[in-house]
Amino acid sequence: MKLFSYWRSSSSWRVRIALAFKGIDYAYEAVHLVQNGGEQHADSYRARNPMKQLPTLEISTAGGTQHLAQSMAILEYLEETHPEPALLPDDPFLRARARQLAEIVNSGIQPLQNLHLMQRLKASFEVEGEPVDARKWCAPFIADGLNAYETLAAETAGNFSVGDNLSFADLCLIPQLYNARRFSVDLSAYPLLLQIEQNCQALDAFKESHPDAQPDAVLAP
Amino acid sequence: MKLFSYWRSSSSWRVRIALAFKGIDYAYEAVHLVQNGGEQHADSYRARNPMKQLPTLEISTAGGTQHLAQSMAILEYLEETHPEPALLPDDPFLRARARQLAEIVNSGIQPLQNLHLMQRLKASFEVEGEPVDARKWCAPFIADGLNAYETLAAETAGNFSVGDNLSFADLCLIPQLYNARRFSVDLSAYPLLLQIEQNCQALDAFKESHPDAQPDAVLAP
Repeated sequence: MKLFSYWRSSSSWRVRIALAFKGIDYAYEAVHLVQNGGEQHADSYRARNPMKQLPTLEISTAGGTQHLAQSMAILEYLEETHPEPALLPDDPFLRARARQLAEIVNSGIQPLQNLHLMQRLKASFEVEGEPVDARKWCAPFIADGLNAYETLAAETAGNFSVGDNLSFADLCLIPQLYNARRFSVDLSAYPLLLQIEQNCQALDAFKESHPDAQPDAVLAP
Repeated sequence: MKLFSYWRSSSSWRVRIALAFKGIDYAYEAVHLVQNGGEQHADSYRARNPMKQLPTLEISTAGGTQHLAQSMAILEYLEETHPEPALLPDDPFLRARARQLAEIVNSGIQPLQNLHLMQRLKASFEVEGEPVDARKWCAPFIADGLNAYETLAAETAGNFSVGDNLSFADLCLIPQLYNARRFSVDLSAYPLLLQIEQNCQALDAFKESHPDAQPDAVLAP
């Protein structure tokens, strides 16, 4: 397998955690979201993922090469083809709750604060002398989503968002908390989420998949 | 089961199709997204779904009453607890493709053109005499997403988006095409999607779940 990824892409990070946690070997191919006008817009990349977003998983078998995109679809695929260690609980309702929490991030927060949206906001509403304030735009969406997550996780959490085992929910939460800090969201209102984050950060899968540990990371000097 | 829904909510419509297709009886409770300042903001509703969005599925058993939200999580729950008739193919790669197509709509289009976002755009950027043009904002996001969907569906479609059986993908596509028309998106560029839509509309599950067939529908005189 090969993963098309960008170090700071939170959707890519979700998939990197799953691959690391399940012990699946993969090659890493960086796609820079800003350089060269955004490498995700190149014809060669669009042929793999016509949404021109990250991540994309390339799967090569004797029968040929196939591509999958959309992080939630990739997570479900990895769970079905590499069921152990599991990233969903056994109980149907708790499985649904893990996916509900994941979707709060995936469709409820991330699309409203990602690079693509910020570029559209600037193109649509920026006037000279009045730049669009990314922090002011993004922070309320992130806070609303994390509020809902904290409330719901209180019903199910153990060491992680749903019980004592890692799930899709945590794979979405941790990268979103990283984004929240980039937009200076005050996280002190989310003690449960911070505790879950601490428990996740102790796992090798989170250390290996962290943005700063990727080959294309640009670290501050 | 009880579904909290709004007739024109496309995310609610996805779940209504699944319930109808699987022959699951449910009670319908309307939540008006605009009246009374948006009934989804009421404390009683927020206790069921702290994201204050539709739909929410209420599940009552001898053990008590539970709530699930996020349409994709609800669809997966219904598929796991009521596997027949199936809404995902058997093949792991095609299952992933059905979910990828569904997510193009769920996280790639819908959040960028829903009521909540339009309200934030108006509050953030509307100035006197220059109203935010919903059509101009929404149409490019819808077109980009449908372009990607049409390209990918060409690789897998039969009568429906993935082969000859209905899947999550179709459940997301049809309500999104309805939204596209509300924003005057030219759909002639998507002949495959229009053919799939026609095949879906012939099914009872789509007729019963259509916005106009819901108890809270407001039909033009």
